[in-house]
This record gives sequence, structure tokens and C-alpha cells, in this order.
Amino acid sequence: MLELYKGIEEDMKVVEKELQATLQAQDPFITETSTHLFYAGGKRLRPALSLLGAKFCNFKLADVIPLAVALELIHMATLIHDDVVDNSLIRRGLPTVNAKWGKATSTHIGTYLFAKSLILISQYEEKKPLITKVLSDVSVKMCEGEIRQISASFDTGQVSKDYFYRVKRKTAFLIMASVQLGAVACGADRKTYLPLRRYGNNIGMAFQITDDILDMVADQSKLGKPVGGDLRQGIITLPVIIALEKSGEKKRLVELAGKMEKSEEEVQEAIEIIRSCGAIDYSFEVVNKYLSKAKEELMALPDLPARNNLSAIADFIGIRKH
Amino acid sequence: MLELYKGIEEDMKVVEKELQATLQAQDPFITETSTHLFYAGGKRLRPALSLLGAKFCNFKLADVIPLAVALELIHMATLIHDDVVDNSLIRRGLPTVNAKWGKATSTHIGTYLFAKSLILISQYEEKKPLITKVLSDVSVKMCEGEIRQISASFDTGQVSKDYFYRVKRKTAFLIMASVQLGAVACGADRKTYLPLRRYGNNIGMAFQITDDILDMVADQSKLGKPVGGDLRQGIITLPVIIALEKSGEKKRLVELAGKMEKSEEEVQEAIEIIRSCGAIDYSFEVVNKYLSKAKEELMALPDLPARNNLSAIADFIGIRKH
Repeated sequence: MLELYKGIEEDMKVVEKELQATLQAQDPFITETSTHLFYAGGKRLRPALSLLGAKFCNFKLADVIPLAVALELIHMATLIHDDVVDNSLIRRGLPTVNAKWGKATSTHIGTYLFAKSLILISQYEEKKPLITKVLSDVSVKMCEGEIRQISASFDTGQVSKDYFYRVKRKTAFLIMASVQLGAVACGADRKTYLPLRRYGNNIGMAFQITDDILDMVADQSKLGKPVGGDLRQGIITLPVIIALEKSGEKKRLVELAGKMEKSEEEVQEAIEIIRSCGAIDYSFEVVNKYLSKAKEELMALPDLPARNNLSAIADFIGIRKH
Repeated sequence: MLELYKGIEEDMKVVEKELQATLQAQDPFITETSTHLFYAGGKRLRPALSLLGAKFCNFKLADVIPLAVALELIHMATLIHDDVVDNSLIRRGLPTVNAKWGKATSTHIGTYLFAKSLILISQYEEKKPLITKVLSDVSVKMCEGEIRQISASFDTGQVSKDYFYRVKRKTAFLIMASVQLGAVACGADRKTYLPLRRYGNNIGMAFQITDDILDMVADQSKLGKPVGGDLRQGIITLPVIIALEKSGEKKRLVELAGKMEKSEEEVQEAIEIIRSCGAIDYSFEVVNKYLSKAKEELMALPDLPARNNLSAIADFIGIRKH
């Protein structure tokens, strides 16, 4: 990870400190619960992308910091709410806020982090209104993606278009906004931020599809949570949709994927059907197409060190195993 | 209710239409779930207060509408999240979103409505940055109040100061912001919006304390939910705190209020102890003090019809029974 952030290591340390400082509340219980996920670590991909986006304009760390911190807060808020929704007990190898303090605290802490991000974003209002506009729009779309995921769960009649619609909203939009708005925070015009935005959209799609593939085929110890979680919850991801088109065992897969309560053996059987028909390989090909597109977009930008970082991040998404 | 809104009836109809229009989503499932609470009705107190606040300045309905709708969206979001947290099945006499569609949908719909409010609020950014600043700050504080309520639940050692801290955050701040920001949206200066703000804070406190009293002594059919809900959930409200100071049966009340699982008889026994020592009457006196202060604040404002509305709203809070 460190290599990807080459040249912005010191700036990222400042972001980390600011993030930690933002999470200190008057109430020690709020500090404890809201910093729990912070201390569990994470790649801080969205803050890093905002900093790298900013490098294509008049980079001033102070101009990007509130945005960078706000992006991570929004991301953390969604993770905490997701854990309530999924009843998840483990994330990043540690008990979730949900597991430690229950759904009541988690629901409010999630909203609290989201609201905290607004205070930071409101600093840009007068001079950079686009930042609030894009982020409020993205926040609505993220919820839409999550809700659509619920209403489409266990539905084996869906097609890849339905899946891409959700992935765009759930994940790609916030990553897209991170790169774009980093540049905007430092005064970029459309000519600069539009290629960055498209780059972000493409790596965001690739990132989530990879996540969904790894949910089936990763090494559990590296994933930090049990394999097959999506299948168990009825979330129909790209490998399932492809297997439903390609596999000779479609009938059995429809039965398995659509079943509300699955045994461990049934989950494994479904993964085996998906894997054996080549749906995993095909899904990785889709990932690679998004990553190629992302890298093409970078060509419209000046050849700065930050462009190499962004390119390396795209490569990293293509090879990550957890 | 209609009399309280005398002079703004037509404007409130426009708010209602705009609110409904805002809740129409592309995804029919999102429209259905997010309009569920809308159709259950409600007083629309916060939008009304924003309109009345605006009357003290250069009132233009179009200038207040986005704020008015946003305030109700924020309020709805908190109600939906509260129902997840409390496992509530009934609100306003109807099944909650939580009861109908489960906690996953409710959690995301709550956040969705909150995010939707941001889109509306972001319209004010360039010209009225105070609106976003106040509302993001209030949103954080509302979560803080809710979280503090959880960490203080079943704690019979708390005092009225702890209770007022939570009530201010949970309820009073948003009501305060409604009246204040309505005026700000129409260009009011501090001299106008500060008395409105203080009025809002005082009626907000009175409103929540009344709510907490009625949770114990209201007619269940009028309350729209079972009586004694707070006690059952371990939320220690003003009547309990006063009874813990005044009642001869303190020891038994500590036992009952601190008990995690209470039988129906125990809830009724606790209410009887609270009622018989005069804690309900004393709590109503506290409400009346807040209402008097609210009405005093109004005296600093010009004698416009809207001032009569605000005064009547304060009176209504003092006599409401559900």
C-alpha cells in the first residue's frame, strides 16, 4: 500500500491525525465507539484519492484536508450501517461496533459520523459549492444502491445491468467523487476534474466487483470475515449472474442462490458451481476492462507523479487478494 | 392544529406538496417506503415554525420551501432510525417502516431521507451559509443526544441535568433551528433571529418533556403507541428523576426503573409510584416554565400575526394530551 501513496505519505499522516482529532468527542462513550473502526485501520483509499486528485491543480493540503476527512467519515458511516443491516460481527478482523455495542449505538454512531462529515464539508460552501452538491447527491445515491440491494436480494431473475446499477451507487460514486472533488477543492476546472471523475468511476466499479469476487474465493483469514457472506445474505453479485447465464447447473444454482436459509454445504456447493463454469475468471475480465478504461482516462492528464500513483492504484485493485 | 397555522394554511399546503414531490424516487420501492411515514401524517411542526420565523423578515415562500422540506425530512429520518433502535412496531397508529420492511430497509431509508435533506439545504450555500452550518451542527448534536440516551439507559443515578442535556440535543436544537433558520432564509439579521432561536429552544424543551410525561400518563389510543415505552426501554425521563428525588418509595423505583426486563405489572407499578409522589405535576410545571420563557422571548419581536401563531403554538404544547 505504501508504494501506492508514494509522495503523499506525509500528507496522509496529517489526514490520519485530523481524522483522529475529528473523532474526539466530549462524551467518552462517543469517542470510544466512533474511534473503534478508525483503530481497526483501513486503506484510507478515498482520502488518498482526493489528495492525488488535488495534485493536478494548485495543491494546498489545507484546502483538501476537510474533504479528505469527510470522505473517510462518510465511508465509515456506511460500513457501520452496513454492519447493522447485515448483522455483521466481524470487520477488518475485529468485532464490529454492532457486535460490541449493539444496533442502537451503531445506527446512531453511523448517522453521527455522516453528520460530522457535513460540518467539514460546509466549510467549502461559499467558495466551492460543487463539493456539497456532489457529496449530497452521492450520499442519496449510495442509500438508493443499498436499498435496491435489499429489494433485489434472493432474486435470481436479475441481470448484470441491475448489478452494475447498484455497484455504481453503492461504491463507485463515492470513489469517483473523491478524486474529482480533491481537484475541485484546489480550484480545478472541468477539463481537469472530468477525466479524474471518469477514472474514479471506473476504478470504483472495479473495486466493488473485485470485492464481490473475493467474497467467494478469498482466503478467509485474509478477508477478515467469513467467505460466502453475500450468498448467505442473498446478495446476487456478478459471478452469480454470469454463472446463471453460463453454467450447465443453472437450475440448481437458482435453487441455491434463491434459498433464504442455506447450510454451509449449500453455500460451498453454489461457489463450486460458480467457479467451475468460469464465472470467476469472467468477472475478473470485467474488472480488468474497467481498470483499462480508468488508465486510459489518465492519459488526458499531465504526466505528474500523482498520475503514476493513480495508475498504480488501478493496478493494485486488479491484483488485490483481500 | 389548523388554528395554530392560521395565515400560513396555504403555504403549508405548498410545503406538503413539495415534501411529497421530494419523496418520489425513480425506484418504486424507495418511493413506497419513504412515503410510508409521510402518509401517516404528522403536525409538520418544524416546517410550520420555519415559515413563521420567515414572516419576521422579507417573507418569500420560495426562499423557505427547501428549508421547510429539509427540516421535515431530517425529522422523519430520526423517527425512522429511532424505530429501528427501539424495535418499534407502531407509530402514529400505523405499522412503522421497521415493522413493515425490517431494519435493513429502515436503516437505509432513514439515512436516505437525511441525505435528501442535504440536497435541499445545499441550495442555500452560497448566499446563506449559516443554514448548512447550523443544520450540520444540529444533526451531530441530535446523534449525540441519542447516543447519550443509550449509554445512560437504566442508570437510576442520573440527575435532571443529564436529562436536560439529552433533551436539548434530541429535540430542542432542531426546533430551535427551524424557527431561526426560517428567518435566516429570508434574510433576517441577529436581532431578529436570536429571539426566535431562544423561543425555539424553549418550546423544544417543553415539547420533549411533555412527550416524556405523556409516554407515561396518556390515553394509549391517543398516543398511538403503548404507554410506558420509555420505562420499558430503560430511558430515564424527568418524571422518573423527580420521583427518585421525591418519592418515599425511592428504593422500589430504583429497582423497577433499573430492571432490564419488566413485566407489565412492574411498568404500571413504577408509573403509579411516579404519579403518586407528584412527579408528573412537577414535570408539567417545568414544561410551563419553559413555555413562559418562550413567550417572553416573543416580546422582543414586532407584533405581527406570526407572533400570535408562535404564542398559540407554545400554548398548544402546554395543553396537548397526545
